[in-house]
Amino acid sequence: MSHPFDEAVQLAWQGDDVFVGRTHPGWANMVGPYGGITAAVATQAVLQHPQALGEPLALTLNYAAAVAEGEYRLRARPVRTNRSTQHWTLELTQEVDGAPQVMMSATAVTALRRDTWRAQDLPRPEVPLPEQLPAKLLFESSEWVRRYDTRLVCGALPEVLDDRNLGSLTQLWLRDQPARPLDLPALAAMTDAFSPRLWLRRARLVPAGTVSLTIYFHAGSAELAAQGQDHLLGQARGQDFRHGFFDQTAHLWSRSGLLLATAHQIVYYKE
Amino acid sequence: MSHPFDEAVQLAWQGDDVFVGRTHPGWANMVGPYGGITAAVATQAVLQHPQALGEPLALTLNYAAAVAEGEYRLRARPVRTNRSTQHWTLELTQEVDGAPQVMMSATAVTALRRDTWRAQDLPRPEVPLPEQLPAKLLFESSEWVRRYDTRLVCGALPEVLDDRNLGSLTQLWLRDQPARPLDLPALAAMTDAFSPRLWLRRARLVPAGTVSLTIYFHAGSAELAAQGQDHLLGQARGQDFRHGFFDQTAHLWSRSGLLLATAHQIVYYKE
Repeated sequence: MSHPFDEAVQLAWQGDDVFVGRTHPGWANMVGPYGGITAAVATQAVLQHPQALGEPLALTLNYAAAVAEGEYRLRARPVRTNRSTQHWTLELTQEVDGAPQVMMSATAVTALRRDTWRAQDLPRPEVPLPEQLPAKLLFESSEWVRRYDTRLVCGALPEVLDDRNLGSLTQLWLRDQPARPLDLPALAAMTDAFSPRLWLRRARLVPAGTVSLTIYFHAGSAELAAQGQDHLLGQARGQDFRHGFFDQTAHLWSRSGLLLATAHQIVYYKE
Repeated sequence: MSHPFDEAVQLAWQGDDVFVGRTHPGWANMVGPYGGITAAVATQAVLQHPQALGEPLALTLNYAAAVAEGEYRLRARPVRTNRSTQHWTLELTQEVDGAPQVMMSATAVTALRRDTWRAQDLPRPEVPLPEQLPAKLLFESSEWVRRYDTRLVCGALPEVLDDRNLGSLTQLWLRDQPARPLDLPALAAMTDAFSPRLWLRRARLVPAGTVSLTIYFHAGSAELAAQGQDHLLGQARGQDFRHGFFDQTAHLWSRSGLLLATAHQIVYYKE
């Protein structure tokens, strides 16, 4: 029996930089698929491309429109290959009234990682461990939240939606549900597993959707494999809410304290 | 007499989504142009495109290779236009041995801003004002640093390069030199006006160069025009240094405390 994550990121290589994939009902969001699963698919495409050099280092996705249920075409094209880095452009299209429409455009950088001087200036926050916290869905209204085992440390969505200004910090442990060994596509998906900070900050569930998401991968696949199926600690916080858009940052650490990914997104909101 | 910034971002429209520009010696970095001026040129191209909807909201640039001195071709293509957002892909190319080579690829999102609920969760740090601080170049080895009037609050490059681990926080006031009214291209350029955090963090000037830069514009051109020629407060900090790459974040506020832009970049380093 295959895992819903592996089903969702399955891509068929068509040659000429093109893959064909299919949306997965298990990863549905309120409108279209969960943004994190689209990030995972983009990561997967680059990893599976026969000309790929190294592994994803940076990935920026622009969500141009909701991907419709069904098949899509994902073009991943290496536009420049250097000695230790490679630059990619990606485009996810679907046929609408017989013409291909861009649903998502992206760029990626892949790189050969090597041993260098190192320092991590964002230590993992000291929080209760996942075993000490109850499993609880992030919220109820989307299917994809059921694909994660989430243990909230702080920053739940407010139970009373009363426009009271609150903070926007959430800390939570998460892993795939059912558990699955960590890899780069799964890590990409998890960087988006935080509800819009606006809901928390404003204590009101206004319509909101990610416009652009940038992920920096600080770990390679070998380091991720060493995490096994363990929970990661995630943290997200909003920065500025204005003129119908806000930005939020996210960080993901291993239990042992290694920073695995940092991510940033800018999100549309109504009212 | 025109301003060196305006000279550098001057683009000639060729039709068919293509502009032609030219590198400017006043904005030279150690190898190729200052990354911030390339960000400004990309911002300018989107703003000047006859089909542009709204103004830049998000911009991601991937620096694939050093732009050579001289002419370049910048293609800015709107790949999807929605009611209030528009998605762009950009590519900067130069002829190398008769064939076009990609030097930079980018994506942008433009948007119509509108009045909504607002909140700013990153207040401007309380620091001495620019008039209370001496003007001092960021460092000496690049020409572009002379295009800014910079007043350092904290986080100078260490005078003694001795591999002692230091922090990576820099705070400084900056404006164009000579002064120039703030606009979106100038703001884009300023988000990159911080030396690589590695130099500071490690107290060693190892070769380093931006691989990918993402800018979120929190203010539109009207809000920027209201800043006039005043200094902005900038802050930058490193996050994780590992395997030959590190990321740093940057924030830019107006004197009155408005957050104008947040930015993130991942940077290559040697050793």
